[in-house]
Amino acid sequence: MSGWSGERVLVTGGASFIGSHLVEDLVAEGADVRVADDLSSGEPENLAAVDDEIEIVEGNLKRMSFAETATENIDTVFHLAADHGGRGYISNYPANCATNMALDNVVYEAAAQNGVERITFASSACTYPTDIQQEKQRLSEDMVSFDERGGAYADEVYGWAKLMGERSLRAYHEQYDIDASMVRIFTAYGPRENETHAIVALMAKAYAEQDPYQIWGDGEQTRNFTYVKDITRALRLASENITDATPVNAGIRDYITINEVADAIFDRLDWHPDEINHMTDKPVGVRHRAADTTRAEELLGWEPQYSLEEGIEATLDWYVENRNKEYVQENLETLLHER
Amino acid sequence: MSGWSGERVLVTGGASFIGSHLVEDLVAEGADVRVADDLSSGEPENLAAVDDEIEIVEGNLKRMSFAETATENIDTVFHLAADHGGRGYISNYPANCATNMALDNVVYEAAAQNGVERITFASSACTYPTDIQQEKQRLSEDMVSFDERGGAYADEVYGWAKLMGERSLRAYHEQYDIDASMVRIFTAYGPRENETHAIVALMAKAYAEQDPYQIWGDGEQTRNFTYVKDITRALRLASENITDATPVNAGIRDYITINEVADAIFDRLDWHPDEINHMTDKPVGVRHRAADTTRAEELLGWEPQYSLEEGIEATLDWYVENRNKEYVQENLETLLHER
Ligand SMILES: NC(=O)c1ccc[n+]([C@@H]2O[C@H](COP(=O)([O-])OP(=O)(O)OC[C@H]3O[C@@H](n4cnc5c(N)ncnc54)[C@H](O)[C@@H]3O)[C@@H](O)[C@H]2O)c1
Ligand SMILES: NC(=O)c1ccc[n+]([C@@H]2O[C@H](COP(=O)([O-])OP(=O)(O)OC[C@H]3O[C@@H](n4cnc5c(N)ncnc54)[C@H](O)[C@@H]3O)[C@@H](O)[C@H]2O)c1
Repeated sequence: MSGWSGERVLVTGGASFIGSHLVEDLVAEGADVRVADDLSSGEPENLAAVDDEIEIVEGNLKRMSFAETATENIDTVFHLAADHGGRGYISNYPANCATNMALDNVVYEAAAQNGVERITFASSACTYPTDIQQEKQRLSEDMVSFDERGGAYADEVYGWAKLMGERSLRAYHEQYDIDASMVRIFTAYGPRENETHAIVALMAKAYAEQDPYQIWGDGEQTRNFTYVKDITRALRLASENITDATPVNAGIRDYITINEVADAIFDRLDWHPDEINHMTDKPVGVRHRAADTTRAEELLGWEPQYSLEEGIEATLDWYVENRNKEYVQENLETLLHER
Repeated sequence: MSGWSGERVLVTGGASFIGSHLVEDLVAEGADVRVADDLSSGEPENLAAVDDEIEIVEGNLKRMSFAETATENIDTVFHLAADHGGRGYISNYPANCATNMALDNVVYEAAAQNGVERITFASSACTYPTDIQQEKQRLSEDMVSFDERGGAYADEVYGWAKLMGERSLRAYHEQYDIDASMVRIFTAYGPRENETHAIVALMAKAYAEQDPYQIWGDGEQTRNFTYVKDITRALRLASENITDATPVNAGIRDYITINEVADAIFDRLDWHPDEINHMTDKPVGVRHRAADTTRAEELLGWEPQYSLEEGIEATLDWYVENRNKEYVQENLETLLHER
C-alpha cells in the first residue's frame, strides 16, 4: 500500500493537460482525489478515465469563497491551476498572467485557513533569469535567489507570477509551518496537450499537411521537451520528499531543436512538406533551455524515464486518434491561437 | 471648479491613516467618494470629518465578489488597501504580506471588468533595491527595472508584493489601456498614524515617559519622514497627470536620523529621559533611505510643503489630544506591537 492511500488530495487545475495525468497517477496510488477547475483551458474529457473515482468541483479559484470550499477537508494540495498558454499568449496577455498572483495567494490563504498540511506548487522554468538562456548552460535551482541582487529576473509577467507563487508559498511555510514544495516544470508535452504549445502545434500543422510548413523563428532554438508522465512523477515525489520549500527542476538535460522535433514528427507521419517557412517575426522566447537535474536526482531519486522518441510516438498516436484530420485542416489557425 | 467635481472615486483602504487624509482632500475637491475597507487596520473614526459626505462599504477586497461591488460605477480608483505594518510586522508575517498580491490583482481585475478608467496605486519605497540603501544615495525611480538583470531586488516579501502590484498594474495598462499611475510612498507620518510606525512609536514612548527610553537599532539609521498631506497631494497629482504607469516617488530628500526625531519630540513635549537604550537586536531595515524628487517635480510639479518641525508639531498635538496618557502608559507594549 502506498503512502497516498486514503490521503485527501486536492488538485487545482486538475482538468488540464498535466493535471489530468497527475490525477490518474494519484488515483492509481489510492489517494482520495478532488479536482477544482474552472474549465477555462482544462477539459472534463481529460478526466474521462477516472471521473467516477474522483470528485470534481467547478469554479474560479480566484474567488475566495470557492477556494475555501475546494480546500475543505483536504490534507495535500497540488496547485496547478493557472492562467497560462504558449509564448504568444504570454506575450499578448500580461494582465491575464498577472492574475495568477491572485490565484496562487487566494488558494494558499484558503488552504492555510482550512488546515491543509502540505502544498506542492507547479512552478515553471520561466522563473529562471532569461539572459543566461541565450547560451547553452543548464539551469540549476540556485540560479534563482531572493538573497542576492540579480537572483530574480524572470521571463515576462508569467514568469514573475510563478516566481512569486514560489516566494509566497515559502512565506506560508515560514509563517504557518505548512509543508511546501515547488517543481519547476520545463517544457512538458504529451497526450491531451493543446495546439498552442510547441510540440502539439508542430503535430497539428504536419497532420493538416500545412505546406509551406511554418516554424516560428529559425527553428534552431532549443527546449528540453519532457514527457508529461515524468513531470507528474516529479510532482508526486516532491510532495512526498520536500517539506521546506526547496524548489526542484523537472525537465530533461537535452537540448532539442524545434527543427529536430519537426523532422521526428514528419518521419512518424510519413509525410514531408515541400517547403519549410521559418517565421522569424514570431516571438520564440529564450534561445536555449535545458535543466540541470542534479537536485531532482538527489532529493527525489528522479530521472526522466521516457525518451523523446517514445514521447513523440505516444503523443502523435493520441493526436491522430483523437483529432479529425479535416477538422484540424479547417480550423488550424484557430486551434493554434486559442489558448 | 476642480477636475474632480462629480468624479466617482473609490479609495480602497480609505479608512487608513493615509487613506483618510486622501479622502478628505478628494471630498474638498468635489469628488464623489466611496471607501472600501475591511477595517483590519483602518478605523471608522479616521473618517469622522467626512463620513456624511461619502459612501463607506465594509468588506474584504481579496474577495472578488466584494471587489466587484466596490468598483461598480466608479471612474477612478486609488488603491491603498494593503496588509501592512511596521518593520517588525513585515519581518514576522511574510505570508500576510504575500496576500497583498491577491488583494492588488483582485482589485485590478474587478476594476477592469467594471470599466474603471484610471487606477492609482499606493506603492512603496520598499520596492527599491535594498543594497544601495546602506550608503547615502537618493533613490530615483529608474533604479527599479524589469528590463535588466538586478533591476528588481525589493525589500522583503512586502516590498516584492508592492513591486508586483506595480508590474501588474502596468500589465492592465498594456492590455486594457487603463490609465495607470503608481506612487512610491516613502516613510509617511502624521495625525492618525498608529504606534507600529516609527515616528508615532517614538511619540508614544515619550508621551508615556518610558525611561530608559527605547530606540530600535543605534538610532543613526535615517528615513526621509514625509508629512501625510504631502503624500496625499502626490497621489492626487499622479492620478491627474500620469496615465502610462510611470512610477513616481513621494518622499522628501532629507536624511533624518531616528535620534534626531526623538530629540525633536522630547523638546516639544518638554520631557527628556534620563537614559536612552539603543536596542541593537531589533530589526531596523535598510540603513539610509531618501528620495530623489526630480521626477515628481517634473511630472507633477510636486515638492514637499511641510517641514519636519511643522509635521512633528501637528502630529504630536494630535497624538496628545487624542490619546489618554495613562492608557498609553498601561498599554504601551500592546500599542507598539499591534499592527
Ligand atoms: N505545459 C507546460 O509546459 C508547463 C510548463 C511550466 C509550468 N506549467 C504549469 O503546469 C500547470 C498545468 O499546466 P498545463 O500546461 O497542463 O495546462 P493549463 O495551463 O491549461 O492548466 C491550467 C488549469 O487551470 C485551470 N484554471 C485556470 N484558471 C483557473 C481558475 N481561476 N480557477 C480554477 N481553475 C483554473 C484551467 O482550466 C486548466 O485546467 C500550470 O500551472 C502551468 O503554469 C506547465
Ligand atoms: N505609512 C507609510 O509610511 C507607507 C509607506 C509606503 C506605502 N504605504 C502604503 O500606503 C497605503 C496606506 O497605508 P497606511 O500606512 O495609511 O495604513 P494601512 O497599511 O493600515 O492601510 C491599509 C488599509 O487597508 C485596509 N485593508 C487591509 N486589507 C484589506 C482588505 N483585504 N480589504 C479591504 N481593506 C483592507 C486596512 O483596514 C487599512 O485601512 C498602504 O497601501 C501602504 O502599503 C504606506
